Amino acid sequence: MSRIDGRTPQQLRPVTIERGWSKHAEGSVLVSFGDTKVFCTASVTEGVPRWRKGSGEGWVTAEYAMLPRATNTRGDRESVKGRIGGRTHEISRLIGRSLRAVIDYKALGENTIVLDCDVLQADGGTRTAAITGAYVALADAVTWAHRRKLIRAGRQPLTGTVSAVSVGIVGGVPLLDLCYDEDVKAETDMNVVCTGDGRFVEVQGTAEAEPFAREELNDLLDLAVAGCTELATLQRAALTAALEK
Amino acid sequence: MSRIDGRTPQQLRPVTIERGWSKHAEGSVLVSFGDTKVFCTASVTEGVPRWRKGSGEGWVTAEYAMLPRATNTRGDRESVKGRIGGRTHEISRLIGRSLRAVIDYKALGENTIVLDCDVLQADGGTRTAAITGAYVALADAVTWAHRRKLIRAGRQPLTGTVSAVSVGIVGGVPLLDLCYDEDVKAETDMNVVCTGDGRFVEVQGTAEAEPFAREELNDLLDLAVAGCTELATLQRAALTAALEK
Amino acid sequence: MSRIDGRTPQQLRPVTIERGWSKHAEGSVLVSFGDTKVFCTASVTEGVPRWRKGSGEGWVTAEYAMLPRATNTRGDRESVKGRIGGRTHEISRLIGRSLRAVIDYKALGENTIVLDCDVLQADGGTRTAAITGAYVALADAVTWAHRRKLIRAGRQPLTGTVSAVSVGIVGGVPLLDLCYDEDVKAETDMNVVCTGDGRFVEVQGTAEAEPFAREELNDLLDLAVAGCTELATLQRAALTAALEK
Amino acid sequence: MSRIDGRTPQQLRPVTIERGWSKHAEGSVLVSFGDTKVFCTASVTEGVPRWRKGSGEGWVTAEYAMLPRATNTRGDRESVKGRIGGRTHEISRLIGRSLRAVIDYKALGENTIVLDCDVLQADGGTRTAAITGAYVALADAVTWAHRRKLIRAGRQPLTGTVSAVSVGIVGGVPLLDLCYDEDVKAETDMNVVCTGDGRFVEVQGTAEAEPFAREELNDLLDLAVAGCTELATLQRAALTAALEK
Amino acid sequence: MSRIDGRTPQQLRPVTIERGWSKHAEGSVLVSFGDTKVFCTASVTEGVPRWRKGSGEGWVTAEYAMLPRATNTRGDRESVKGRIGGRTHEISRLIGRSLRAVIDYKALGENTIVLDCDVLQADGGTRTAAITGAYVALADAVTWAHRRKLIRAGRQPLTGTVSAVSVGIVGGVPLLDLCYDEDVKAETDMNVVCTGDGRFVEVQGTAEAEPFAREELNDLLDLAVAGCTELATLQRAALTAALEK
Amino acid sequence: MSRIDGRTPQQLRPVTIERGWSKHAEGSVLVSFGDTKVFCTASVTEGVPRWRKGSGEGWVTAEYAMLPRATNTRGDRESVKGRIGGRTHEISRLIGRSLRAVIDYKALGENTIVLDCDVLQADGGTRTAAITGAYVALADAVTWAHRRKLIRAGRQPLTGTVSAVSVGIVGGVPLLDLCYDEDVKAETDMNVVCTGDGRFVEVQGTAEAEPFAREELNDLLDLAVAGCTELATLQRAALTAALEK
Repeated sequence: MSRIDGRTPQQLRPVTIERGWSKHAEGSVLVSFGDTKVFCTASVTEGVPRWRKGSGEGWVTAEYAMLPRATNTRGDRESVKGRIGGRTHEISRLIGRSLRAVIDYKALGENTIVLDCDVLQADGGTRTAAITGAYVALADAVTWAHRRKLIRAGRQPLTGTVSAVSVGIVGGVPLLDLCYDEDVKAETDMNVVCTGDGRFVEVQGTAEAEPFAREELNDLLDLAVAGCTELATLQRAALTAALEK
Repeated sequence: MSRIDGRTPQQLRPVTIERGWSKHAEGSVLVSFGDTKVFCTASVTEGVPRWRKGSGEGWVTAEYAMLPRATNTRGDRESVKGRIGGRTHEISRLIGRSLRAVIDYKALGENTIVLDCDVLQADGGTRTAAITGAYVALADAVTWAHRRKLIRAGRQPLTGTVSAVSVGIVGGVPLLDLCYDEDVKAETDMNVVCTGDGRFVEVQGTAEAEPFAREELNDLLDLAVAGCTELATLQRAALTAALEK
Repeated sequence: MSRIDGRTPQQLRPVTIERGWSKHAEGSVLVSFGDTKVFCTASVTEGVPRWRKGSGEGWVTAEYAMLPRATNTRGDRESVKGRIGGRTHEISRLIGRSLRAVIDYKALGENTIVLDCDVLQADGGTRTAAITGAYVALADAVTWAHRRKLIRAGRQPLTGTVSAVSVGIVGGVPLLDLCYDEDVKAETDMNVVCTGDGRFVEVQGTAEAEPFAREELNDLLDLAVAGCTELATLQRAALTAALEK
Repeated sequence: MSRIDGRTPQQLRPVTIERGWSKHAEGSVLVSFGDTKVFCTASVTEGVPRWRKGSGEGWVTAEYAMLPRATNTRGDRESVKGRIGGRTHEISRLIGRSLRAVIDYKALGENTIVLDCDVLQADGGTRTAAITGAYVALADAVTWAHRRKLIRAGRQPLTGTVSAVSVGIVGGVPLLDLCYDEDVKAETDMNVVCTGDGRFVEVQGTAEAEPFAREELNDLLDLAVAGCTELATLQRAALTAALEK
Repeated sequence: MSRIDGRTPQQLRPVTIERGWSKHAEGSVLVSFGDTKVFCTASVTEGVPRWRKGSGEGWVTAEYAMLPRATNTRGDRESVKGRIGGRTHEISRLIGRSLRAVIDYKALGENTIVLDCDVLQADGGTRTAAITGAYVALADAVTWAHRRKLIRAGRQPLTGTVSAVSVGIVGGVPLLDLCYDEDVKAETDMNVVCTGDGRFVEVQGTAEAEPFAREELNDLLDLAVAGCTELATLQRAALTAALEK
Repeated sequence: MSRIDGRTPQQLRPVTIERGWSKHAEGSVLVSFGDTKVFCTASVTEGVPRWRKGSGEGWVTAEYAMLPRATNTRGDRESVKGRIGGRTHEISRLIGRSLRAVIDYKALGENTIVLDCDVLQADGGTRTAAITGAYVALADAVTWAHRRKLIRAGRQPLTGTVSAVSVGIVGGVPLLDLCYDEDVKAETDMNVVCTGDGRFVEVQGTAEAEPFAREELNDLLDLAVAGCTELATLQRAALTAALEK
């Protein structure tokens, strides 16, 4: 049985990670998981929020948003509505936590890095693409900060790499990296964030139709770990390529 | 090794579920998990939101909030700040999804039930106490709606029961139902929502300090399933007691 | 002629004042006037708002709110609406002014006490119950601050006691402490805040249907003063009981 | 002993009521109580708010605001702050209630009249000047609606007249119609709204420094009733003058 | 062919500029262009916004608003809506830029002047009347600041005068200073801000119905420059008259 | 004398117009004017806003926004601030007016087209790039609507083409299409919107440092008209190329 787009259940969509997409940001990536395209920038500023001043420790945070026509039907802008929706809040927090999981605040020093993940086109898995791309932008921003001596020589704020993927059960079959049409039909939907060494940073599973059994959970975790490992390889490849900016 | 409050790692805090706490609401419960106290009301209204009209299906939603002095330090009211924070949004959505997982919309008919979960006193696990208590308030509201003929005789909108508990790894030891002081020290923190038959509705695990391994995840899930089963028994007991209202 | 609930015109509803209802707050009270239940907490913080810094004087303020299902029909949360309504504003200001009327700012020193009055169940007279309960929470908070040496020994910030009651004319008869069903039918509605020695802190009378004559005003004031005196006795009794917290 | 501005304790400031100040509004008045100047407009629209439709009854409501430099120090605009303050809310509600006290909704029919009271210059007593002026604008708007046949011939929505004045105790002496400098020093401050026949619509007394005794309250009410009676005469005079618009 | 109100195409409406309209503001003007009436106040405060501190330079800014019944149909207050509309923002910014064009920040020193332009009655050209009136209020505020020694003797922050007028093409004819009824019918609408020596500060032309040709643009600019010159004369006359305040 | 980037005063930056950049939107364009990159989508929906229903006429509107790191320093998101700034409002309104200038509402029928212009990277001239790109997206959306029979065969809602360019005086020299570094130094700054036949839709000139003379205005208009003509040619070329989507 093949999937909507011809993939096997264990197969990621074509993933591309283009660095240097912005002339202004300290790190910037256009990441695509199939038709899902997220523009990730990392902005470095000296200093930290007030509540952290004098601690000698840095801070990393993230904001996620969708362009109004990233989806099939145009959505109202949150700036126009005057309030950020629950989904946006939730995903921004998830991205922030995921990247902070591989940050050594002491090594970062009193610097702040903000990751902005703006979805240009959505086709399922926007939050996992965002985390995967934001990590690469973050890594470039750290390199930039090293070069500018904002981070002391010999200190490495990154304690590992991090990537994310969605998995789900569709028609009883566990699938990796759901596109939108699969996501809509999924009985169970899970987003998994892993470090490069295969440990978990976040596991968020939701029963969409039916509660799921322990076995199903295990199958999904297997798929996700394999997917994240593959994404970690792609991140590494992207980061070792020359950045012609 | 015993815990801060003398419990074993597998032990829940003392749980109480008091029904009939409001003279106005169709279902109402004061639930406590140790010193965490959440006031849950279920409000039934005929009709559904506009986007669901004419579908013949009902709707269930939830809102979570904390009183300003529910915590050790007074927090500003979200009404005064003029915006709902990300954490509040996230938990409200979690509670809503958890309860919808055991609802048959067709059987509910075009009625809406809103669960309000207001934390009177917080000591860790407010979202899991809220889900556990809200289920009981929901069950009472369904009974009320049956009596008022809002739901047709012979139709049962509840397809099961649902309860939730937090688990976490503290000092390397997996613990059930963390109180605030444990939560703060947890390396990994997980909230698990289960149906009464031991299947999963939501699994949300977060690495607070260190990424966690598959094994640790498994230990935590074991603990959580046992805890939810125990909570399901307490819910059943509460619901079979006479409601003197 | 007896009232809806069998009381005489001069009779208060059963009043209870339970102290120590929160393990976090410096003072906390669950006050009930019949079915009206308000949870009052007093939060002490060292320091004062910016505009008062260096004055050597303290500050006392209050916030009032209703849980969404405190009333017969569920109301939208003000946090969700993103703005505080006029009624909420008005009552919060009334409570703050009432308590400040018995505060000696110099004796309080540069400390701030915030009174939060959250209505758990509403049946008329929520603002008067809130003032009456908040005074007791405030007194406990002052005791706490004395013990912590935030207030200098020998200085008493409380210059008196304060309580409040509603009165109104229903069917031509002046009644004390209106419940919701009486309030709705009242031709004139008045909230009176008195000190323990029978003087006035606030008098707010409103003609709901017909303008009222001086005579009627006098009758209502007589009733209110008697009611407040009775409430002052109950406050004193509550405060002299041991607080087992 | 004479007052700051040479008045006797029982004396109003010079009061002027200029009608026809706007070419657009159905009723419009520039009212001044000494240096306090309030621009009041009455806007008539056919139809009523949704919750009142089909009742056959009309609605009257009011909004109060201050221009940013109405006061000695410039205040931020509430439109810029994005929220209406408690004081504004409170006064808007007071003005609305006061005018509704002399309205027969049935006679008004399904029409809405909105009173806008914008303070151009403030020198104490802005809310009482607003009520006094708004009544005259309202009366003109009712005449306009009669002429346009929005109100049926022979029906009079106005059941009386209404005016308001502030009173207070300054240096132990009860004074009528406080200007700003007196208001700031008042021990007790009271706003009284009366109908033309000397009955009360609103009585709002506040102890600013010391709680006040029954006797003082009585003195203040005497002063206020006399002041309102005088204002009623001035309103009548203004309304019988020709409106050259 | 004569215009709606009998003017020639090159004729301004009757313009009045009354100074000293507020007892509180450092400069204040009631300006009218026919039935358009705008109340302009200039508020001086020592100090500048944070981003300008220590620069030795001052700041000038403006806020524009309409009273709800300034227009033929009542508009909702922006304070009630909780947000400022695009039109308000746009005009406030235009007024601020126009006045800053004749300010020497160094000579002003670290003082801030805020111009508030509140439209009491609108009949077309409110933004141009506002700029014209605000300049006069600004000049009075500068005089005040000189007298108070906030501005150093011998330094003149005003580098020139500024006035504004609207022009438009109605029925193919270029007209000066459109009233509302003309504005509504205009094919092209232009607001022009000039200095007293006939140079341009702002030119904002908009095709309302048809795009306009270079020739038409030229005709409109000719009209506008002549109109501004006339307004500059009126401003000068107003400012040389004695201010009896 | 050559410019910062080597251009002559009369030279546009390299302009690219890529169509089909979104798989969801009915029209979509990535437009670049040098390093300024704006993503424009056109979203078609059947029906019109309430105030236009039953008129048989369509509606076109626009929203402009910047990604937080489109600029050299990261800006806070307007969704997070909870309000749209004046600059955003102003530009959104300008884009909307500009495109409506070439729309025949009757021919469009009761359909709405929303243009979203999101700046991915800013280097001066974002509003003019947005208008130029949005026109192309609009043209594609009209074609789409024709194919879907939302617009009747034989009716052409586009009455012409529209493009925009900035001009300014830098160091006394009139320049076409300012980049950011030129814009910052400009004495006068003007945005001009023209139709393809060289007539004006909008002319917005602002003196940044010095008021400008009629002559300078004329020079700038000459430059702008030539620039818009060139842009119109590029738009035509882009639209005649095959859209491989």
